Amino acid sequence: MNKTDDIEKKLDPLFNPRAIAVIGATNNSNKWGFSTITSAMDGFKGPVYPVNIREKKVVGQKAYKSVKDIPENQPVDLAIIVIPSVYVVQVMQDCLEKGVKACVVISAGFAEIGKEGLALQDEMMAIARKGDIRVVGPNCMGLWSATSELRAFMFPLRVKSGPIAFVSQGGNVGGAIVGSGYDRGVGFQRYVSCGCTADIQIEDYIEHFGLDPEVKVILAYIEGLNDGQRFIEKVKKVTRKKPVIIIKPGKTEAAAKAISSHSGALAGSNTLYDVVFKQAGIIRADTSEELLDYTMGFLLQPLPKNNKVVIVTPGGSYGVLCADACAILDLDVIDLPAKTITEFDKIFPPRWSRGNPVDPAGDRDFPAYFKAAEMLLQLDETDAIFFMGFGDLSGVPDDFIEHMEHFKDADGNYDAFTQALLNIGSEFPQLIHRWIKQYKKPVLTTTFTQETPTLEEGVLHASLTGSSCQGISRII
Amino acid sequence: MNKTDDIEKKLDPLFNPRAIAVIGATNNSNKWGFSTITSAMDGFKGPVYPVNIREKKVVGQKAYKSVKDIPENQPVDLAIIVIPSVYVVQVMQDCLEKGVKACVVISAGFAEIGKEGLALQDEMMAIARKGDIRVVGPNCMGLWSATSELRAFMFPLRVKSGPIAFVSQGGNVGGAIVGSGYDRGVGFQRYVSCGCTADIQIEDYIEHFGLDPEVKVILAYIEGLNDGQRFIEKVKKVTRKKPVIIIKPGKTEAAAKAISSHSGALAGSNTLYDVVFKQAGIIRADTSEELLDYTMGFLLQPLPKNNKVVIVTPGGSYGVLCADACAILDLDVIDLPAKTITEFDKIFPPRWSRGNPVDPAGDRDFPAYFKAAEMLLQLDETDAIFFMGFGDLSGVPDDFIEHMEHFKDADGNYDAFTQALLNIGSEFPQLIHRWIKQYKKPVLTTTFTQETPTLEEGVLHASLTGSSCQGISRII
Repeated sequence: MNKTDDIEKKLDPLFNPRAIAVIGATNNSNKWGFSTITSAMDGFKGPVYPVNIREKKVVGQKAYKSVKDIPENQPVDLAIIVIPSVYVVQVMQDCLEKGVKACVVISAGFAEIGKEGLALQDEMMAIARKGDIRVVGPNCMGLWSATSELRAFMFPLRVKSGPIAFVSQGGNVGGAIVGSGYDRGVGFQRYVSCGCTADIQIEDYIEHFGLDPEVKVILAYIEGLNDGQRFIEKVKKVTRKKPVIIIKPGKTEAAAKAISSHSGALAGSNTLYDVVFKQAGIIRADTSEELLDYTMGFLLQPLPKNNKVVIVTPGGSYGVLCADACAILDLDVIDLPAKTITEFDKIFPPRWSRGNPVDPAGDRDFPAYFKAAEMLLQLDETDAIFFMGFGDLSGVPDDFIEHMEHFKDADGNYDAFTQALLNIGSEFPQLIHRWIKQYKKPVLTTTFTQETPTLEEGVLHASLTGSSCQGISRII
Repeated sequence: MNKTDDIEKKLDPLFNPRAIAVIGATNNSNKWGFSTITSAMDGFKGPVYPVNIREKKVVGQKAYKSVKDIPENQPVDLAIIVIPSVYVVQVMQDCLEKGVKACVVISAGFAEIGKEGLALQDEMMAIARKGDIRVVGPNCMGLWSATSELRAFMFPLRVKSGPIAFVSQGGNVGGAIVGSGYDRGVGFQRYVSCGCTADIQIEDYIEHFGLDPEVKVILAYIEGLNDGQRFIEKVKKVTRKKPVIIIKPGKTEAAAKAISSHSGALAGSNTLYDVVFKQAGIIRADTSEELLDYTMGFLLQPLPKNNKVVIVTPGGSYGVLCADACAILDLDVIDLPAKTITEFDKIFPPRWSRGNPVDPAGDRDFPAYFKAAEMLLQLDETDAIFFMGFGDLSGVPDDFIEHMEHFKDADGNYDAFTQALLNIGSEFPQLIHRWIKQYKKPVLTTTFTQETPTLEEGVLHASLTGSSCQGISRII
């Protein structure tokens, strides 16, 4: 596994199998084997063979007693194993004999439970190695692969296709991040819950993702590493080409104890991880919200040249909170050049703020805001722009429109202002796209209420208020 | 205004007027006078009189040239003024003559623009004082009063009734918080955008809210104070009875500059505010998300006796992130008593974490989780419990149910597990209510994905992941 082309070839059966078997598939809906087979059948286009020692049919399909009973002319590339740990060694032997190329071992009761489990895991791996079978897990939730629409997963995973690849040592947090990504409009090319990493290490997945041209941003949730040096060496090659963003909990003793009983990993020194991540060019996120904020920033925004920002907003108080959040994060809320103030005096009413944040103080001439923002983007003195309180123009709040419904004229038309809002709203995403493309500077827009940032029509919206200002500031 | 019963009586015409006039009401939808009259008419049950010097009818109603032209037998308690600042003095004189008791001055161009505006403001206030007219603003957005369903506001405000009272020196941030509250299920008894506070000071509103038996939690957004000493003296009497939670931006120079151009206030020393708030018993929130997190905590949860917490979760990685968040905030993630470990050995499979976080490691016997949580609540050693990853049981994720739809049996029934999930889901809120009532300890539940905490059926749900763990930890 020293050459990178090996990694690509060897992990391919995991992500692009021709056919899969679910060993432990069952009609008993109280068992994980039920939700695993139903998930595996949901999307994947190739054959899915249920394997169950007792049941003849599983969810309407012919079941096999063993993977070896699947006819010889029907090869199985990937086996998903969801049976009690004591039977896994025998089943791995069956997989070896069938010529299975990769296994997802969902079953728990291996390294994470201590010495006895570790012995079982070693026994399983000894067989797998004989046949060069790649193993995900054990004690994992499975994986998602966009290329074959494969949910080799223990329950129905809410995921959409996209340019992110993600490996997680926590199945639950991993699933929550993938699901939150779904809600935010962020899609995944690959997601792997890697469990005890008996075979493939976290750095192997990251290396593999680095080679995949469809993958634009790489994410990981790590509780502890088996070989820190190997990790750094492999990952620092990837960060030269693609952003790698990682959550690594364990700042406190309480979390270190929880990690040890969860994944059996050593949390390690938090400071050491900080140093190592920095050396390897890794971006460290503290929370899953931050992780996805960064991800969205990298997906949509150009990298700013420097830290000089301007804020444009119809709300003075939005500007105050945003300026505070920016300055706390060492962004420079610049003084406006004198020439810009003179120019803005011509397009805004006299009461405008005459500074940064640029606040026209209740002016309802919305095109003037857009003009001002574009003038600011043209300045050499700016590296990025916060365009706050206009996000909803890309979808005027339903309640506003609903209210204005009562006040339509006799011909059923909205008043001029509401209609103008609706018109601007439909043009807003295109405008932002053009700005980003033309000026190659980050343009961050916001919505009126507290919301996690979402991707709508490819525009990154964050919430206007406090912590989300911090969120979008971090993106820059 | 020294006696508190004065405050009650004097602010009453603001919140419970018999009739209102909108001075500057217009059919021209490009002006704020249009959205102000339509908002005022939306909900309020008493008469709303449009006043416009030129238009004969406004949104279908007879309009008056002056508030004085409204017939004598039709008194006006509250006038909303939304006209250019230069005409406000004359209009205030008209209000005095009509016997108006309170004015909401939305018009801008007063103290916030400097010396000239301040002179105008003084002139206006001199007239108002003659008639003891209470003034909100100028340069404000208006107010909401649940008792008369009154939106004396410059645009349709999305707000629901509830036990919160809120005064904000930032109209936009205020509106965003009220709207975010709406999305989270948090309602307001009163909301005031107080603008330049020419008459009623922030501490007067807080004092008034303190006397209102319907108000359970008081919120404020403050950029700067006119009289810090008066503020402390009044507010510290309120905090003895009700929680007062305040956002005060201005930690950085950039924000202090933005404050000065926005509200004309002096940001003051951030450290000084920290000390003063502490002395007055005020809880300081850094962001609007935090503000609403605290609010929801106070609304729903008993105060914990101490800082000892237990975490129960089906997801080890959820437990790790939560333990880290708790410990960072000085919550004590306690060691489980030996007797509890012995008891849990009987109800969980052998692979359970045998510690805190309590993680049954993939066990699907959900009633066991509930039993364990209740046993933990009964312990003297615990002050609060995080019950993570079960929030969705109060509304099993739609996508899970949708997926399971394909696998219904011939009679159209769900499988046993899905049905069990649906059953538990419907009982979950009642269970949480009973626990909180019976054990008088905070019980915090969570949803599977990143979401801001919401109130659903009176249960406080937070997100499972990183920063929301911090959010719910802060609540405790």
